[in-house]
Amino acid sequence: MNMDNTVEIRVRYADTDQMGVVYYANYFVWLEIARTEFLRQLGIDYKSIEEKERLSLPVIEAWCRYKAPACYDDIVLIRTYLSQLRNTSLEFEYEIFNKKTNQLLAKAGTQHVFINSQRRPVKIPEKINSLLEKVVLSNK
Amino acid sequence: MNMDNTVEIRVRYADTDQMGVVYYANYFVWLEIARTEFLRQLGIDYKSIEEKERLSLPVIEAWCRYKAPACYDDIVLIRTYLSQLRNTSLEFEYEIFNKKTNQLLAKAGTQHVFINSQRRPVKIPEKINSLLEKVVLSNK
Amino acid sequence: MNMDNTVEIRVRYADTDQMGVVYYANYFVWLEIARTEFLRQLGIDYKSIEEKERLSLPVIEAWCRYKAPACYDDIVLIRTYLSQLRNTSLEFEYEIFNKKTNQLLAKAGTQHVFINSQRRPVKIPEKINSLLEKVVLSNK
Amino acid sequence: MNMDNTVEIRVRYADTDQMGVVYYANYFVWLEIARTEFLRQLGIDYKSIEEKERLSLPVIEAWCRYKAPACYDDIVLIRTYLSQLRNTSLEFEYEIFNKKTNQLLAKAGTQHVFINSQRRPVKIPEKINSLLEKVVLSNK
Repeated sequence: MNMDNTVEIRVRYADTDQMGVVYYANYFVWLEIARTEFLRQLGIDYKSIEEKERLSLPVIEAWCRYKAPACYDDIVLIRTYLSQLRNTSLEFEYEIFNKKTNQLLAKAGTQHVFINSQRRPVKIPEKINSLLEKVVLSNK
Repeated sequence: MNMDNTVEIRVRYADTDQMGVVYYANYFVWLEIARTEFLRQLGIDYKSIEEKERLSLPVIEAWCRYKAPACYDDIVLIRTYLSQLRNTSLEFEYEIFNKKTNQLLAKAGTQHVFINSQRRPVKIPEKINSLLEKVVLSNK
Repeated sequence: MNMDNTVEIRVRYADTDQMGVVYYANYFVWLEIARTEFLRQLGIDYKSIEEKERLSLPVIEAWCRYKAPACYDDIVLIRTYLSQLRNTSLEFEYEIFNKKTNQLLAKAGTQHVFINSQRRPVKIPEKINSLLEKVVLSNK
Repeated sequence: MNMDNTVEIRVRYADTDQMGVVYYANYFVWLEIARTEFLRQLGIDYKSIEEKERLSLPVIEAWCRYKAPACYDDIVLIRTYLSQLRNTSLEFEYEIFNKKTNQLLAKAGTQHVFINSQRRPVKIPEKINSLLEKVVLSNK
């Protein structure tokens, strides 16, 4: 994750399909990496959330609009935004670019809810919330 | 694909993640299977579209709302609808159920455009269009 | 799983890569399905092994020899054999065929060990062992 | 790829399964990344081999021995060796480590053959062969 909330991912052969481009479901794996690194840069370690706080942050909604294909060995650059922050849930938005050409390849979003080990929604822990509040777009 | 536009898929161990449920991106792989079988039942063989018509039908938008988790070894049942049919594009909607409990696990949608080998949008071939027209919901 | 220890799997678009054939790692996902159904037919439910016995059966070695490619929408037929049965471990071997042409596409094998929740190897439970003994090739 | 033939990969949530560790088939995706970067460092761009030389290098055999699990968010370090170089084929071997603990997680190997667009084996192109000869272990 760079200082401008971007992460770079090189397209793997495994990501492609016989259309010669990246299979559409694989973009959602990239989004996971992008938001994890976004959180890490804020000082929020998702692994610790699961292991220490016994909370998890499953996806409750996801979408992606595909504008141009990503191809094998391309480096894609994903910019992540925290677009909404609520009591128990939050939303990320993403822009995926071809790093070399700067072409926008896709826009995407994911909505998440904090749940405990009984899979019940819980309030976002205070320490995490205060870090997120600094960067949420909906506050601005 | 059964007569009621449903397809059954057994959850693979590979589909799960360490949260103990199916990883969110894998639902989109299921949608691909559901729409392929939906088309096959109408008499439309997607493989032939690519090989004989030299057309393909990439996803230009996809979304999923997750309501309850799918778990290892569950059989999920996916019901597919053709929700929109336009000149060059079409939209599917999907409902994913746990077969045993009938619980609705997710709702989803995908939008597609017919493109030729130069990746240009093309009119849906007449033969395919006439088969799709019979089942599209937006006509009703 | 049919009576002759085979399972059928239709190749998904997601399974292919830009070489136009199934990506090599995906065969190992098929092996998981094949051995799960092999066990189920013997009366051994792998999900219960994890949930009730608190044991699991991770792979400690895997190999595959690829002889001919599997392609999109093909139906592959996987035949599973229990090739070795030991105190704490067992081995499966697999043959993967194109169902339509009967062509042998790949041969493969996996070795597994029963472990408990502390990830220690444990003796195969007696009930499971007696079911496996009936079909192991190394006994014959 | 570092100077010592290693590549680092961070374990994705998508890589894990409900056993809480990386699913066994996903190691083979890592091997693909490791050998691609190994070749790139030698000055061999696999993408160009496919696009310009119209050749490809499919896997004809693959194996992995799993010694200890890789877990979510771990950084694994993969060291790649060219273990055999023949007229039309070559073999890689790999060691996968946990970067933090230096623990060896797995050993693996893949065998490949150069094929043309008719899927016939072909002699390794001279320019590529001379770069590979410098690093092959079997020459030493």
